[in-house]
Amino acid sequence: MKKHNFYAGPSILNEKVIKATADAVLDFAGTGLSLLEVSHRGKEFDAVMAETNQLFKELLDIPAEYEVVFVGGGASMQFCMVPYNMLRTKAAYLDTGTWASKAIKEAKLFGEVDVVASSKDKNYSYIPKNYTIADDVDYFHYTSNNTIYGTEIRKDPDVKARLICDMSSDIFSRPIDISKYDIIYGGAQKNLAPAGVTFAIVRKDALGKVERPIPTMLKYSTHIEKDSMFNTPPVLPIYSALQTLKWYKEMGGVKAMQKLNEEKAAILYNEIDRNRLFVGTAAEEDRSLMNVCFVMKEEYKELEAAFADFAIKERGMMGIKGHRSVGGFRASLYNAMPKSSVEALVAAMQEFEKKH
Amino acid sequence: MKKHNFYAGPSILNEKVIKATADAVLDFAGTGLSLLEVSHRGKEFDAVMAETNQLFKELLDIPAEYEVVFVGGGASMQFCMVPYNMLRTKAAYLDTGTWASKAIKEAKLFGEVDVVASSKDKNYSYIPKNYTIADDVDYFHYTSNNTIYGTEIRKDPDVKARLICDMSSDIFSRPIDISKYDIIYGGAQKNLAPAGVTFAIVRKDALGKVERPIPTMLKYSTHIEKDSMFNTPPVLPIYSALQTLKWYKEMGGVKAMQKLNEEKAAILYNEIDRNRLFVGTAAEEDRSLMNVCFVMKEEYKELEAAFADFAIKERGMMGIKGHRSVGGFRASLYNAMPKSSVEALVAAMQEFEKKH
Repeated sequence: MKKHNFYAGPSILNEKVIKATADAVLDFAGTGLSLLEVSHRGKEFDAVMAETNQLFKELLDIPAEYEVVFVGGGASMQFCMVPYNMLRTKAAYLDTGTWASKAIKEAKLFGEVDVVASSKDKNYSYIPKNYTIADDVDYFHYTSNNTIYGTEIRKDPDVKARLICDMSSDIFSRPIDISKYDIIYGGAQKNLAPAGVTFAIVRKDALGKVERPIPTMLKYSTHIEKDSMFNTPPVLPIYSALQTLKWYKEMGGVKAMQKLNEEKAAILYNEIDRNRLFVGTAAEEDRSLMNVCFVMKEEYKELEAAFADFAIKERGMMGIKGHRSVGGFRASLYNAMPKSSVEALVAAMQEFEKKH
Repeated sequence: MKKHNFYAGPSILNEKVIKATADAVLDFAGTGLSLLEVSHRGKEFDAVMAETNQLFKELLDIPAEYEVVFVGGGASMQFCMVPYNMLRTKAAYLDTGTWASKAIKEAKLFGEVDVVASSKDKNYSYIPKNYTIADDVDYFHYTSNNTIYGTEIRKDPDVKARLICDMSSDIFSRPIDISKYDIIYGGAQKNLAPAGVTFAIVRKDALGKVERPIPTMLKYSTHIEKDSMFNTPPVLPIYSALQTLKWYKEMGGVKAMQKLNEEKAAILYNEIDRNRLFVGTAAEEDRSLMNVCFVMKEEYKELEAAFADFAIKERGMMGIKGHRSVGGFRASLYNAMPKSSVEALVAAMQEFEKKH
């Protein structure tokens, strides 16, 4: 049975990325050694790091005044790195879910945090609008895509404050106007690479404005100055990231990915709206293209376990159980997800509807 | 031509580890999905994490009052995590090289640092002895093996202070009396796994004694409480670590590795001492079993480039150029290095001696 990978993260990677990584684990760049056991200071890996950086910038059209760094620790480490480097007295945060509120918790260790709005009142099922950001904040932070709740902010916001965004789960899913941001960061394990590497796109002149001493590894400038090689970087995840970036370029870049993502999401949301058994959980105007959350309608709740069983065990729909905070189902449709897998899920939903 | 992997780190892994990792990149635990794209919350990876933790403890005979955690960021991140969690007012550090002095630099951000002794006066070619550790320090920190300078402290020190050690480059090379330590940490990319994961062995009751607020990701207790799954862990490096641990067990554990390491190092040091062209750079009583540093004798200095050329290009001795701080040559003989590669290096040295 074909397995369809709907995991929320770590999540599906293109088969070329997987194949190229497996090959390099056996023999890296013709060195006769494994990617797992070569020096990160060797010329072969140097070339990987340089090309990854260059392609990352090219695909996202990153202006010259920005640098891209690759570090370890996941977006969770960025939750403290951001305020460590950027928060002088006060920062504004938008609370759109679990990850946003974790970022808020860390920021509070470094200064005053103004939560400008929260959708916690309705289990984060929508994106708050019409909030005000005070003029005197050091920055405004938001999470562009909420993996658990299936909501997404797909337009780069127009705000006066310096803008910082966690794009862990929708980076490379659409073109971004980088110039609106001071920092964009994210864990790689959605649209980029296996778990173990985190990217940060940093406007260089935004740094150096806080007074506190910052541990060397937590300073963005450390990694900028050493081209992400201050210490041993996570070699394999970076190699895989490069394979993904090459595939994006081959596919026509982020604009092409956006088009595919819109198509895939439309197929599934249309079925959810049409199917008499299911209902989406996120506010329609805030629906995520990356994570589609849905549950059984109230009157069919008792069928939830049966559908999970059928979809997973009989149709190979891996990872479609919803997060415990929402329940039901979540289909993650990241860039590497083929349309055919979405169609297979829709077919399974239709088949199940007919039976019940 | 067979390649012999003498890199200082990332460094040689056993071929079974490489093969098992490559296999899992193509199909992980029969899931039909790649190790690169499966959820870390799935039962298959849960089992990997649990077994890694259990085998790690078993092989190092870690007492029950300790926990082992796996995090990202490398030993360089530990340089700040240790004082963040452990330094109240004053700590003692032994300065035996580049990594020790980097650890000292970070500790100074958190309190007073008493450098009890340093071998910087002789380019870190020996391990200082007969230093005094003040009674009132929160802990004493040292680096057990100095990769750049080829010196090693192979006996667990007897000190009154709480003991913390960076064992990045010699963990699993010999039995350790864990009970002497409060924290032992290290990057995995020497005797354990590819780059991207860091271990810390932590005596649980040593934590919670500092007053300062600690960012969640930098708190050892965060990772202990969540079994290293607070956030997405570096999945692939942990999988590879498990393969290495299984191989250690098969080989007879750390005692067997110690015997092999002593044999391999003796073969190379004997040749350095015998060969008329070469001389070791580290004090004899402090020589590392992991990193063997040597240069051409003064009168043969002009042959250094020729030997590098011959050894690397004609005999496949990868990574034997010395670090720029020492010059000459460095052969790293980590656990996975077969005796045959050491013998091949010795043969190359003898052949070169005959020619000159």
